[in-house]
Amino acid sequence: MSLPRIAVDAMGGDHGARVMVEGAALARRRHDKFKFLLVGDETAIKAALDDHPGMREASEILHCDDVVAGDEKPSRAIRRAKTTSMGLAIQAVKDGNAGAAVSAGNTGALMAMGKIALRTMPGIDRPALAGLMPTLEEHDVIMLDLGANTEADARNLVQYAIMGAAYARIALGVEQPRVRLLNIGTEDIKGTDALRDAAAALQAASSLDMRFDGFIESDKINRGQTHVVVTDGFSGNIALKAIEGTARFVTDLLKTAFTSSLRSKFGFLVSRPATELLKHHLDPNNHNGGVFLGLNGVLVKSHGSANAQGVANAVAVTARLLEADITRRITADLAELGEDALRDRANGNGNSTDGTAAAK
Amino acid sequence: MSLPRIAVDAMGGDHGARVMVEGAALARRRHDKFKFLLVGDETAIKAALDDHPGMREASEILHCDDVVAGDEKPSRAIRRAKTTSMGLAIQAVKDGNAGAAVSAGNTGALMAMGKIALRTMPGIDRPALAGLMPTLEEHDVIMLDLGANTEADARNLVQYAIMGAAYARIALGVEQPRVRLLNIGTEDIKGTDALRDAAAALQAASSLDMRFDGFIESDKINRGQTHVVVTDGFSGNIALKAIEGTARFVTDLLKTAFTSSLRSKFGFLVSRPATELLKHHLDPNNHNGGVFLGLNGVLVKSHGSANAQGVANAVAVTARLLEADITRRITADLAELGEDALRDRANGNGNSTDGTAAAK
Repeated sequence: MSLPRIAVDAMGGDHGARVMVEGAALARRRHDKFKFLLVGDETAIKAALDDHPGMREASEILHCDDVVAGDEKPSRAIRRAKTTSMGLAIQAVKDGNAGAAVSAGNTGALMAMGKIALRTMPGIDRPALAGLMPTLEEHDVIMLDLGANTEADARNLVQYAIMGAAYARIALGVEQPRVRLLNIGTEDIKGTDALRDAAAALQAASSLDMRFDGFIESDKINRGQTHVVVTDGFSGNIALKAIEGTARFVTDLLKTAFTSSLRSKFGFLVSRPATELLKHHLDPNNHNGGVFLGLNGVLVKSHGSANAQGVANAVAVTARLLEADITRRITADLAELGEDALRDRANGNGNSTDGTAAAK
Repeated sequence: MSLPRIAVDAMGGDHGARVMVEGAALARRRHDKFKFLLVGDETAIKAALDDHPGMREASEILHCDDVVAGDEKPSRAIRRAKTTSMGLAIQAVKDGNAGAAVSAGNTGALMAMGKIALRTMPGIDRPALAGLMPTLEEHDVIMLDLGANTEADARNLVQYAIMGAAYARIALGVEQPRVRLLNIGTEDIKGTDALRDAAAALQAASSLDMRFDGFIESDKINRGQTHVVVTDGFSGNIALKAIEGTARFVTDLLKTAFTSSLRSKFGFLVSRPATELLKHHLDPNNHNGGVFLGLNGVLVKSHGSANAQGVANAVAVTARLLEADITRRITADLAELGEDALRDRANGNGNSTDGTAAAK
């Protein structure tokens, strides 16, 4: 069976075509059945392909001059969907010219263009951005939504849980992923109406291929034990960036501390393998590849500053999602849940709690 | 001039009277003008005072048998406001028997009891829980609300900014604290209506003793440069716990890494001063003392697991807030802002944005 190819926006990200092509070539060593559509400036792409002859044979180039800028407003970018490398990569998925698109460009623009061109899949009201993060255990944890939508009602949250679980079965290889809703406490009474209603709906939906474990607080995200953390895009983005920022903060402190005295400097050299391990574990390149779930087609965001190894991870995630046909699997789960049950339960619920919910 | 005394809930927290009394005694070395009302089991308090004769002279004991449990629902705890050590400590503030209360007990119960007994101060709609966190610079950063209320409208956020700035002038000693609103991007269009309206109101209020610098993302909270980060209680709690959890996650990783080989173990010993510095910087005991702002009276929460040094920091913060008369200062700032301006601008705005707000 021939697999659909992967469209790569070769111009997005901080490092341009060279790193995007090198990343795809690295991923191809692990997934050598895949072919690529490389979208962007032909001269730059050809130059990048010179170092990767195997990749050159597996790729077609789609030339265009225009690029979405990193700081461009999505509302402006969407007007150039037919001329930019990002827009044309997504368009290839829409036209069936590719099965998935990967871009390291402007996230807001990618989301907006993706929504317009691919539309949300049947049964899903809003797409969500899902990402992988390290934990203390062997497996990563998936968190969504990381910022595709500012708010989410109970119905959105349940759909995110289903999409996140489908992603976890593919990316983490667990049959029954353990799913939790992010909240500011673990008791039933904590949080917003939307969270409480989503929890009740997931608790009742026992036929789904997941195990719903209730609420989780954000200090437990990285402890392991949970495969999927579900939240609205605002809170998810706050949590994600707080985690990234603190990891950087602690390693910066460490660097300062280790270089503050000769004795420490010596200790640092002796223990370098330990700090290398730490660096490896925290390096975002090892967990690269945010996935927009819920669209008619697979759309993957690589971190703008990712190196070739990071891009390779994003492309490898894309390949696995294509192989496993994630869209079909989400559809099956939605059918299992039963649309009406969810609609009845979540109907009319917004984020309208206003009582005290003091933190412990 | 004689200063009002500080009521200490001697029974709250994981370690009970011994650590609460020792902590207050440590703080008294720095603020020796202060007197204390120690509320709780007389026998336990007297035993704890045996080691601190100076503290014994400065203290009165208010005996009670009852204690609010750490996992007790606030709705249940408030019924025992007149019999528990927490309730009586707050009551002392209400009756003018003390100027401030400190407790290491159940945060939700403390908040609920504080609201009922002390009520919000004139011009403030909702109180907020504010905390201090470490940064890469010399000064800590103040974040609020950390979970006193699940949601906040623009008017609440502006009031939090004013309260946070007043706290920063006292706790951080800066005349014009730099204030930012927590958001999922720094552009004007990011986030909810409440955030955008609050930003516009703060931008327009140029006569306040603060410098409003716009939005901040959660990966920048610990970078320094900002003195006050303002957010709703849900997002604030998510960010706080994500920061705490990640700091613990990274140090746990480090511990594992350092003990994974003999060579690393040796390196660890040689560089211990560096890791001690790191530990000191991240130790919550060095930043202990969440403050409920916006009540008629000063109410301070010490971390449940804090040691005596942590309690001493919480008591010292309480003493500074009393000396500087924070309630009066917030009132003055509110007058400066002009109630009507804020009411006009923020009127009728909730958290109702629903467009795409993709994260970078």
